[in-house]
Amino acid sequence: MMGYLLILGLAVLALLTGQSSAKYEYQTKYLDVPLDHFSYVNESVTFKLRYLTNDTYNPDGSGPILFYTGNEGDIELFAQNTGFMWELAPKLKASLVFAEHRFYGKTLPFGNASYESPRHLGYLTSEQALADFAYLLAQINPSNRTVRARPVVAFGGSYGGMLAAWFRMKYPHMVAGAIAASAPIRQFDTDCGVFNQILTSVFSVAYTKECSLNIGRSWDVLKNYSSSADGLKTLNEKFKFCSNLTKAEDVTGTFFDYLIDVYGNLAMINYPYNSSFLAPVPAYPVREFCGRLAQNYTGLELLTKLQEALSIYYNYNGQAKCLNINSSYDSSMGDLGWGFQSCTEMVMPMCAEGGSRDMFPKQPWDEKKFSDDCFKKFGVRPRPIAPAYIYGGQYLEGASNIVFSNGLLDPWSGGGVLRSGNSNIKIVLIPEGAHHIDLRAADDNDPGSVRSARQIHVQNIQLWLKQYRKVKKTF
Amino acid sequence: MMGYLLILGLAVLALLTGQSSAKYEYQTKYLDVPLDHFSYVNESVTFKLRYLTNDTYNPDGSGPILFYTGNEGDIELFAQNTGFMWELAPKLKASLVFAEHRFYGKTLPFGNASYESPRHLGYLTSEQALADFAYLLAQINPSNRTVRARPVVAFGGSYGGMLAAWFRMKYPHMVAGAIAASAPIRQFDTDCGVFNQILTSVFSVAYTKECSLNIGRSWDVLKNYSSSADGLKTLNEKFKFCSNLTKAEDVTGTFFDYLIDVYGNLAMINYPYNSSFLAPVPAYPVREFCGRLAQNYTGLELLTKLQEALSIYYNYNGQAKCLNINSSYDSSMGDLGWGFQSCTEMVMPMCAEGGSRDMFPKQPWDEKKFSDDCFKKFGVRPRPIAPAYIYGGQYLEGASNIVFSNGLLDPWSGGGVLRSGNSNIKIVLIPEGAHHIDLRAADDNDPGSVRSARQIHVQNIQLWLKQYRKVKKTF
Repeated sequence: MMGYLLILGLAVLALLTGQSSAKYEYQTKYLDVPLDHFSYVNESVTFKLRYLTNDTYNPDGSGPILFYTGNEGDIELFAQNTGFMWELAPKLKASLVFAEHRFYGKTLPFGNASYESPRHLGYLTSEQALADFAYLLAQINPSNRTVRARPVVAFGGSYGGMLAAWFRMKYPHMVAGAIAASAPIRQFDTDCGVFNQILTSVFSVAYTKECSLNIGRSWDVLKNYSSSADGLKTLNEKFKFCSNLTKAEDVTGTFFDYLIDVYGNLAMINYPYNSSFLAPVPAYPVREFCGRLAQNYTGLELLTKLQEALSIYYNYNGQAKCLNINSSYDSSMGDLGWGFQSCTEMVMPMCAEGGSRDMFPKQPWDEKKFSDDCFKKFGVRPRPIAPAYIYGGQYLEGASNIVFSNGLLDPWSGGGVLRSGNSNIKIVLIPEGAHHIDLRAADDNDPGSVRSARQIHVQNIQLWLKQYRKVKKTF
Repeated sequence: MMGYLLILGLAVLALLTGQSSAKYEYQTKYLDVPLDHFSYVNESVTFKLRYLTNDTYNPDGSGPILFYTGNEGDIELFAQNTGFMWELAPKLKASLVFAEHRFYGKTLPFGNASYESPRHLGYLTSEQALADFAYLLAQINPSNRTVRARPVVAFGGSYGGMLAAWFRMKYPHMVAGAIAASAPIRQFDTDCGVFNQILTSVFSVAYTKECSLNIGRSWDVLKNYSSSADGLKTLNEKFKFCSNLTKAEDVTGTFFDYLIDVYGNLAMINYPYNSSFLAPVPAYPVREFCGRLAQNYTGLELLTKLQEALSIYYNYNGQAKCLNINSSYDSSMGDLGWGFQSCTEMVMPMCAEGGSRDMFPKQPWDEKKFSDDCFKKFGVRPRPIAPAYIYGGQYLEGASNIVFSNGLLDPWSGGGVLRSGNSNIKIVLIPEGAHHIDLRAADDNDPGSVRSARQIHVQNIQLWLKQYRKVKKTF
């Protein structure tokens, strides 16, 4: 069930492709950055880190810096799709900086050979990426004994939100505070079934409860049809696959994985306005999907309704000639990079229990198989203990000036920080929110909880900036 | 003037050899630790990290852990010479753990080949060492969703104190607080002359002001004698060198470097009781030294008095047959390791201005020459920006639960944290203190400021433990 591991990365791509035209403008720059910040085995090797800047709203260069901690994708897409930062910059007379994560977009330390072997790809880690960001800020926003650096506020969503939070935790001298949106920093040791339980709940409440029950029943129906030539023929006719399914595993393997991915994607992009991912989806796509599965269906009728519902996802504009189940999203280098990170330190155990607990086929978490698959694919084995000892996350009393925001309709919220015993860590819950909607540009259709979340973000940022300016030199 | 760079490491050795007999007992253990915590180029390579434990005072295993963040030397020496921790353990019913720093003592990742080339030695960095400590604690003091780890308090002196402070800054989930004694975390961008100015001041106030003035005059006198065969003959007779000096550079190079080292050493080990380093020194050795240079001397008489004073350092017990100026301390792998660290990330610029500012010959800081020397010696070049972007240090408002203690008679205090605008960072100044004396075992001769410092340490530790126990689970 490798698909699960790509969902986090995938979600980002989903959001990013929501706006295809370049709305915001910036300068593109490159900085030579050490390949390895933490050892001197190849001391002199550097690479070009791409970053985007805009100083329009801060002409005298004295205002704060709003800094996006780039995640697993092309940084231009993040810049175009984090409207909240662009709307905030004029209010705070701030500069904008979007820093690309190493091994993504145009920041490829070994060019086309970056993904060749662990000898290259091994430098793709979150710790190195955070050090890249610190190194970049040290260059473009220097602090010295007479002049202190301008205040910096970090922003990020999803894995980028994890990076924003960790950046404040590990480099508090570099950043006054962090807005970490939908950042599942606790996904590493949350119960493996939580993601699918929340996902099931999203499909249960979107329209009628029958939606998730129908999905829960669909696996056996599909499996039954997969076991005979006639059954496969029916499925091929019903779903109009781009390549006909010819054996049982095509159904219980490829098609099941596709469906599981699609349900996760739909929940994450369950925005209150039309957005676009491979093909466009309508506002509240889960509701639209579930509207087609609103009653108790069984057997062939269930498959008919399922096909209609799926078309919301893959054929909302009616342009798709067939259903391609080989991938629920565009394959790109970004996916491969996230696959590597998932196989090394970003190990997020996922499982499904089936039955009454969730709407999925039973699928236990198998650490050994996961490790073997990783070794086969990348030549490395996971270090599942890494997030716990490197970043912690369960106990945050040593941290400060971080907002963790989570949409409660986002299946990733199960790994998010939803409570805090530390008054310097702020929690923002968005009951009506999907995956880091609060970082997107304001929209007339945004529900009240999303508008309110953005207001709280601004209040916290203003507080951090005030704190920062009050600090006296102590040397 | 490479000698300067070794002083920090040297100080530790000096302190450690102060007690030659094994006073405290512990179990010796080893743990397999990843060679590289921050990349996956050699994902499967591990090494054996040595650590020492004692649970005598905490038989039921529920008490806190007092954790020494080992620095540049054999961890057994630190365990034997950090009496404060041993005296504290029974009071707090605490366990003791002393963790060895990678590439020192018996923790050699590549065995005898550990120092062979940057391909091995390149993994000797403070960031990797801190991650080793976190990894070790994750194993011996695990935290999970039902049971929280026992509270840990970090201790360290000198570079070990820097590590203790950084450990709390970077891994606050692992450690409730840190006692960072004589930790010059600001030495990287403090004015390069501060060390020698404080050193001069120590020699000015120890007995009479003539002491530092005599030293200040001695360089020219020595130089004059070095320029003729007769002069050299006089020097050889006067100082009884183990190998006769035969040319001017033997005086202005080797002997000057030796003298500069000795003055730094004397200040650091300026304890109120007898201690031992190469040869034993008396209590308050700087006062003893300066007692022999108490009046205004010139010319040959100055050299006579200087020789007498030096004997305090190299021949207090009258056993030395001659003066060996090739090194002011035992050469060991520890020195070489610190040399490498100084040549990579621990770059502490040092200079002397001479004249009225300090008692040394003028010696500017030459970054290029330093870099070239490092490349020649180790095949690497320094990254002087590393401490600033990795650790910060000038602005500590994001940090908490650290005590920075500094003896004001310690030349390293110039790079220490002597003020704090953050109420969660505590400053302890020890006017009568030398280099991290507060971590040593209590002694009847300890001045009041040292006793008081230890009391403040205990109060802060108790506060941190109380805070830690109050934290509620938030997941």
